[in-house]
Amino acid sequence: MSKTPVAVLGATGTVGQKFALLLQNHPLFEIRELVASPRSAGKRYRDACAWKQDQPIPVELQEMVVQPLGEKLQSPVLFSGLDSSVAGTAETEYAQNGHTVISNSKNHRMDADVPLVIPEVNSDHFALIERQPYRGAIVTNSNCSTMFLAMLLAPLHRAFGVEAVHVTTMQAISGAGYPGVASMDILGNIVPYIGDEEEKLEIETGKILGTLGPDGIEPAPFAVSAQCNRVPVFDGHTETVAIRFSRRVTPEQVSAALREFKGPPQELGLPSAPAAPIMVTEQPDRPQPARDVWAGNGMVTVVGRIRACPVFDVKMVILGHNTVRGAAGAAILNAEALQAMGYLKS
Amino acid sequence: MSKTPVAVLGATGTVGQKFALLLQNHPLFEIRELVASPRSAGKRYRDACAWKQDQPIPVELQEMVVQPLGEKLQSPVLFSGLDSSVAGTAETEYAQNGHTVISNSKNHRMDADVPLVIPEVNSDHFALIERQPYRGAIVTNSNCSTMFLAMLLAPLHRAFGVEAVHVTTMQAISGAGYPGVASMDILGNIVPYIGDEEEKLEIETGKILGTLGPDGIEPAPFAVSAQCNRVPVFDGHTETVAIRFSRRVTPEQVSAALREFKGPPQELGLPSAPAAPIMVTEQPDRPQPARDVWAGNGMVTVVGRIRACPVFDVKMVILGHNTVRGAAGAAILNAEALQAMGYLKS
Amino acid sequence: MSKTPVAVLGATGTVGQKFALLLQNHPLFEIRELVASPRSAGKRYRDACAWKQDQPIPVELQEMVVQPLGEKLQSPVLFSGLDSSVAGTAETEYAQNGHTVISNSKNHRMDADVPLVIPEVNSDHFALIERQPYRGAIVTNSNCSTMFLAMLLAPLHRAFGVEAVHVTTMQAISGAGYPGVASMDILGNIVPYIGDEEEKLEIETGKILGTLGPDGIEPAPFAVSAQCNRVPVFDGHTETVAIRFSRRVTPEQVSAALREFKGPPQELGLPSAPAAPIMVTEQPDRPQPARDVWAGNGMVTVVGRIRACPVFDVKMVILGHNTVRGAAGAAILNAEALQAMGYLKS
Amino acid sequence: MSKTPVAVLGATGTVGQKFALLLQNHPLFEIRELVASPRSAGKRYRDACAWKQDQPIPVELQEMVVQPLGEKLQSPVLFSGLDSSVAGTAETEYAQNGHTVISNSKNHRMDADVPLVIPEVNSDHFALIERQPYRGAIVTNSNCSTMFLAMLLAPLHRAFGVEAVHVTTMQAISGAGYPGVASMDILGNIVPYIGDEEEKLEIETGKILGTLGPDGIEPAPFAVSAQCNRVPVFDGHTETVAIRFSRRVTPEQVSAALREFKGPPQELGLPSAPAAPIMVTEQPDRPQPARDVWAGNGMVTVVGRIRACPVFDVKMVILGHNTVRGAAGAAILNAEALQAMGYLKS
Repeated sequence: MSKTPVAVLGATGTVGQKFALLLQNHPLFEIRELVASPRSAGKRYRDACAWKQDQPIPVELQEMVVQPLGEKLQSPVLFSGLDSSVAGTAETEYAQNGHTVISNSKNHRMDADVPLVIPEVNSDHFALIERQPYRGAIVTNSNCSTMFLAMLLAPLHRAFGVEAVHVTTMQAISGAGYPGVASMDILGNIVPYIGDEEEKLEIETGKILGTLGPDGIEPAPFAVSAQCNRVPVFDGHTETVAIRFSRRVTPEQVSAALREFKGPPQELGLPSAPAAPIMVTEQPDRPQPARDVWAGNGMVTVVGRIRACPVFDVKMVILGHNTVRGAAGAAILNAEALQAMGYLKS
Repeated sequence: MSKTPVAVLGATGTVGQKFALLLQNHPLFEIRELVASPRSAGKRYRDACAWKQDQPIPVELQEMVVQPLGEKLQSPVLFSGLDSSVAGTAETEYAQNGHTVISNSKNHRMDADVPLVIPEVNSDHFALIERQPYRGAIVTNSNCSTMFLAMLLAPLHRAFGVEAVHVTTMQAISGAGYPGVASMDILGNIVPYIGDEEEKLEIETGKILGTLGPDGIEPAPFAVSAQCNRVPVFDGHTETVAIRFSRRVTPEQVSAALREFKGPPQELGLPSAPAAPIMVTEQPDRPQPARDVWAGNGMVTVVGRIRACPVFDVKMVILGHNTVRGAAGAAILNAEALQAMGYLKS
Repeated sequence: MSKTPVAVLGATGTVGQKFALLLQNHPLFEIRELVASPRSAGKRYRDACAWKQDQPIPVELQEMVVQPLGEKLQSPVLFSGLDSSVAGTAETEYAQNGHTVISNSKNHRMDADVPLVIPEVNSDHFALIERQPYRGAIVTNSNCSTMFLAMLLAPLHRAFGVEAVHVTTMQAISGAGYPGVASMDILGNIVPYIGDEEEKLEIETGKILGTLGPDGIEPAPFAVSAQCNRVPVFDGHTETVAIRFSRRVTPEQVSAALREFKGPPQELGLPSAPAAPIMVTEQPDRPQPARDVWAGNGMVTVVGRIRACPVFDVKMVILGHNTVRGAAGAAILNAEALQAMGYLKS
Repeated sequence: MSKTPVAVLGATGTVGQKFALLLQNHPLFEIRELVASPRSAGKRYRDACAWKQDQPIPVELQEMVVQPLGEKLQSPVLFSGLDSSVAGTAETEYAQNGHTVISNSKNHRMDADVPLVIPEVNSDHFALIERQPYRGAIVTNSNCSTMFLAMLLAPLHRAFGVEAVHVTTMQAISGAGYPGVASMDILGNIVPYIGDEEEKLEIETGKILGTLGPDGIEPAPFAVSAQCNRVPVFDGHTETVAIRFSRRVTPEQVSAALREFKGPPQELGLPSAPAAPIMVTEQPDRPQPARDVWAGNGMVTVVGRIRACPVFDVKMVILGHNTVRGAAGAAILNAEALQAMGYLKS
């Protein structure tokens, strides 16, 4: 079976570089086009890129010439890691021209007709595509820190009914892209503010866990309060979470529900799907970004320290790889699910 | 006026070193004796100490010979930075022998007859001393991360009535002493667990904000839920806090109550007292440990990002210097308050 | 005696901020004008500045309105922390207009008629001013990492004759300004390259230790080889140095020569001069940036581990504060020396 | 073909853990016994170990019961990551009892009859085994920072004749084991001293590059001067090197000699051998530990910035993985070479 040709939009950025690595030797998709800003266009990828990964640039991409954003593309499927300053218009235009845009950018996530999907959680929302006015389509994944929270809440909300959530995040510097956070701001320091991040956590979670009805997505009815911090960690967002349920729930019940959780990616055996999307650890001082961020090749949300909360019902610590499961890997898993479910016209 | 002679117990440790620095040129107290484990006893302080401060050892202490813990001391006042493995018995014995022990150790904090005091908040609890069976006395200050939370809650509880609190801490490595946290555990990493720390925050806060009655301290009636993390920061504990009040309260009211807060140390003009114990910052990305930890010579709790909370009522970020206001400086301010209020027989 | 009015050029940058702090309450100079790029001009200093110091903006400067670079200034003395992209022309014009420009920028350092001075070492080079074509003057200090090396070599070259030097630097991130080094490049990492830095060390050292003759400065006749690295340290450049002398020299002789070293700033009692410009430490694992960078208020070069070298004669480790003695503090000491020696027409 | 059973001595330590990981699925060797101090003996490996790797404990070792050091072992080949406080005697006894001890410990490295081998460089030194008085044998690899220097110098000494070397190291914290370096000593800091490290670099290099004659190893006749620093990097030692040759050599010649270098491991196709032991990078700011430490699965020495030196002839920057090629991986490659060359009686 031949692979679906794909393009990477924003190929020189941090998320774009991750797309390049994660799509290397992918069984279903093959990068045929690399797209970036006019400044990079015309250059070979190796020259256009300030490559910041700990593995080298895939050999087959090193000499590929970067195309300017906006130009006509051949690939039916586009992975977008575009900066939000340009993603909105560009993604719309490509969708109008018939491409399926699978985007990690924030611009269209909250559009009423755009699915915001974690395939283990709400792949039924893909059906929104049919309400889109485009010849192609736009599908999005969530913000990185939202990904791990929504993954955690999905089985718990289903089983017990979530009433309220408080989350404090400790987010890695790679989440801000390159050059991103200045070293003088973060070396030996904590910055207790990330622009727009708390809003995303508070709003996107509701849409992902919401219900698709005739009028679109009805958001899940619980409130989320987020406090977001940047910390001197390279990869991996750690989050402390406290949850109030609509009925009495023990830590053991929470743990059991998380361990059992699976979704369509596992059932369909999608190539990038981990065996189970959530790993529960019993070690008293885990998860830790430096030790656990690569669990399940960076596609697993690790949950630890599940215990009773004197104020809410249960509290815990969660961790995920922000540029893999929280960004490029999430988009790729979306693409795999779309193809398996017949949404990709290739 | 002659200064009160004091001894430092546990003088070679991290807190002991901070006592040595903060008591240098102190207007009321003068270090005459340095006490440490038998292993250090008999050595000159400069040789007994693995000095880890960014200022040099005070000249007048460099040649002072360290005495072994347990030996008879001349100084009426003892500052204790003893390790909890030995502090319990040693402090009791010194108090029985007539010394006033002003301790940063955890052992006696929750004793029914031992005051656990932040002098801006509950200096009336010093009266517990009279119920102690000792010829001398034991007075304690709180755990470091509790200090900043209790300071924050004191004016708010008084003004509005606190009903519930959720706090997530991001604590500096200096809080674990030396050698303390191994670099392989914390460089570029987060450890979401600090032994006993969450319990201290959840229990000590209630005692500090409690009411002294004929039967002792009645703890404040609200619940605290704490999630504690170690982060790669040298000095300064950052905490995200969310508070539910017994009535509707706005961020502006919270801010005003914090700005106005003062207590006996300010009214008495104690030497180590900051002009105001709480500083409210309006900068959107502050407080930060690397920038704000030395506010008020490390004796001020800095509060920022005061805003409405979708789950509780108001949320915010607080920061304090864990080894100054959170440890040695707290004990010294307690001593100054005790002397000014007539509790020190010198 | 009234203070000399001064302006700070490049006042919003990292070096400019250090000028603002170090000139606070200075006994001889008073900041009357703050100058920056047109983008900052017209704003109050507090708004124009991304302030990155651990002390707050001096109160008297907070509301001062920033002036655009190039505009006519009133102050006779200008401290320049300008970016090298604009310093060359701007400094020349201000000197032509009668100002004494005391610059930390690299542009004019190697001009034949511009003194490149460390006042402990070569204050006689100030006489070059008289050969300048300007109504005012330009005086420069060295690159930060050069400062500590030249300071070390000055007494040794005088006493023993230096023949060759190898230096490897480990330089703090604050040396690159703000935003400067991206955190993704330096957290848990070493970057073994700093643009132009090795050249500066290899060339400026020779001019500083050179001899002023009728034809200008004759550079010192020894070769320097430098290897420069950026390391995840906030403040403080550490350098390993190996030296070959023209005759047999022991580590003890080196140590003695360093301890005795003094210069005009010490003899004249200049306000910013440390008691001795070099401190020799005997501790086996020092100097360390986190412990020693503030020695002598950041104006001292700390030297340790002086020992025999199996390849050269003697090797050692040196450390200095790159933004104090290595930048703004160096310029201020130059100004103090110029005034004391009668070169400042105020 | 059945695999050779092996034991790991010091299995719970940092190097022992790396042996456990690197020998997982090894084609020639299979861990059958884990040996550690009496304190760990009798426990399952998973319980005895403070596991600090970013991959989990190999499943087949988790339940294996740890044996006490000194007890009789079944495996013919023993990999030793023992602490130097016990390695000397223990390794000797096991060798006397017929085991081939392949050790990363320093104790026997400089013994006249013990080969200190990098198989690309001096596998002929294995012949020393025949002069050993043991029924078994002891074979050692070098200190971690020495490994990369000796690897660099081997082809250069052979081609051009090395006369003198100056090296400054910037060494990762993992090189000190666990708990090793205290975080308070290294976070945002440089420690310019590592006990015994400079001596090892200065002496071991000569033995490795020495000549085996009838009277044993004649060390290579050039001097090495080392200055060693601990830096806040997790894995990867970076070293700046300057070399004087016995004749004129250009950077281009150095680069060519390094690129061409191969040895017996490459010729024999040993399982752990990289395709080439040295990788030369042309990027101006490389090698960097965070980007290059995993080159060749951590078995390659990366060399960059090869350029002329104003004092010596050529200077450069080198980097290697200290716990892989610099420790456990080096020992495993030695074992593979020994087996391929017929020195292992299994």
